[in-house]
Amino acid sequence: MVISIIPIPIKEDVEPDDDLAELILASIKRQKQKLFNYDILVITHKIVSKAEGRLVNLGDVKPSRYARAVARKHHKDPRMMELILREAREIVRIERGIIITETKQGFVCANSGVDHSNIKANFVSLLPSNPDRSARKIRNIIKKKTRKEIAVIITDTFGRPFREGQVNVAIGIAGLKPIIDYRGMEDVFGKELKVTEIAIADEIAGAAELVMGKLDRVPVAIVRGYKYGNKQGSVKELIRKCGNDLFR
Amino acid sequence: MVISIIPIPIKEDVEPDDDLAELILASIKRQKQKLFNYDILVITHKIVSKAEGRLVNLGDVKPSRYARAVARKHHKDPRMMELILREAREIVRIERGIIITETKQGFVCANSGVDHSNIKANFVSLLPSNPDRSARKIRNIIKKKTRKEIAVIITDTFGRPFREGQVNVAIGIAGLKPIIDYRGMEDVFGKELKVTEIAIADEIAGAAELVMGKLDRVPVAIVRGYKYGNKQGSVKELIRKCGNDLFR
Repeated sequence: MVISIIPIPIKEDVEPDDDLAELILASIKRQKQKLFNYDILVITHKIVSKAEGRLVNLGDVKPSRYARAVARKHHKDPRMMELILREAREIVRIERGIIITETKQGFVCANSGVDHSNIKANFVSLLPSNPDRSARKIRNIIKKKTRKEIAVIITDTFGRPFREGQVNVAIGIAGLKPIIDYRGMEDVFGKELKVTEIAIADEIAGAAELVMGKLDRVPVAIVRGYKYGNKQGSVKELIRKCGNDLFR
Repeated sequence: MVISIIPIPIKEDVEPDDDLAELILASIKRQKQKLFNYDILVITHKIVSKAEGRLVNLGDVKPSRYARAVARKHHKDPRMMELILREAREIVRIERGIIITETKQGFVCANSGVDHSNIKANFVSLLPSNPDRSARKIRNIIKKKTRKEIAVIITDTFGRPFREGQVNVAIGIAGLKPIIDYRGMEDVFGKELKVTEIAIADEIAGAAELVMGKLDRVPVAIVRGYKYGNKQGSVKELIRKCGNDLFR
């Protein structure tokens, strides 16, 4: 089965309280595309954050004394630092101007996901506060309007240890199990596979990034032709518990 | 531009000294497919290792005293441990039966990439000793035979910190730059992108895994429709230097 990755540009700049599901459906139509059962809609979190009003005017941020001290030490904007700390549950590493936190949503990433790219001047975006819920909401509206059984993955680009470059990963999921568990199954030689759990939601997120790019207005992609069975899933399944992690 | 991911099953079990490029071309033909310029051929390392004779009969392995001691402490097969240590440049973590090393090729991964799945009983496979070279060799033969300008990515599935599940990543590359560097470019609001380098080779590897799976004989996929410019690249660009890594 061939998998297709179809870019869905969105012309409009997304504003707080926009109906994102409606905007995506209109954009799909404009591309002369439509949705089919089992399509996976991959959406960059930036437009979700915008629609949910998760934007902050840096001019309105009053950095705490602590944020100012940390910012000074690590050569950061104190208002950015304030937001990074507010969005964090824990600082995992802070070194050489790089700050890695565990966000309140549970993700380990740079700057708690606070980001100023593809957003109007002087504003930054925060991650959706509950990306699984955001994904479910979009999925439910689209199911209602199209009567199609689809899955939704909300994404962000994260760096990672050991390897250079960022990759797009899933940060919110609806309608799909993010990990395939091959443990206990047999390979082609009849040997039991021992520890093979594949994070397909992250692979799908990365695949979608290939048509999204960073400079164009392509915040959505349809991934078509991937067979998935289990329709229950949460991004929480992708988050390793701190105590199980050899690198924290 | 829509991207397609086309599975290429290979019927035969690959044997040492098989002409892998020839086998892949025959398999593409059997699927009634053909190669086009700019196609990216993604190949799971397992068949590369097999063709290059990077298989070891565990019965032939004499574990050193050190390997036996480490194996006993961490509940591992001493012969496996011997191979893991031989393939490693450094042990990065060893805990709870999990051993993460930096391999001689420079990858940080579990068990130095030594693996017993999808291989005949009592044998294990090692990573190709120089996967960039393996990729270049396959690319050159295929270019000669088809006169098509393609890229080749050799892959393995690696675990990663912070997130559950493994993902397919690039371990050898020919004909493609693995990272797109957006730094200095401007986003849609005219703001300069500061730190966005995307590891597209890893995203392509992950995308290909979606049609490969683990249980079927689909060790190859064609990724078609992804525009790439720079045709020079090495997997070394994806490897973060130890001194630049906050998690080593």
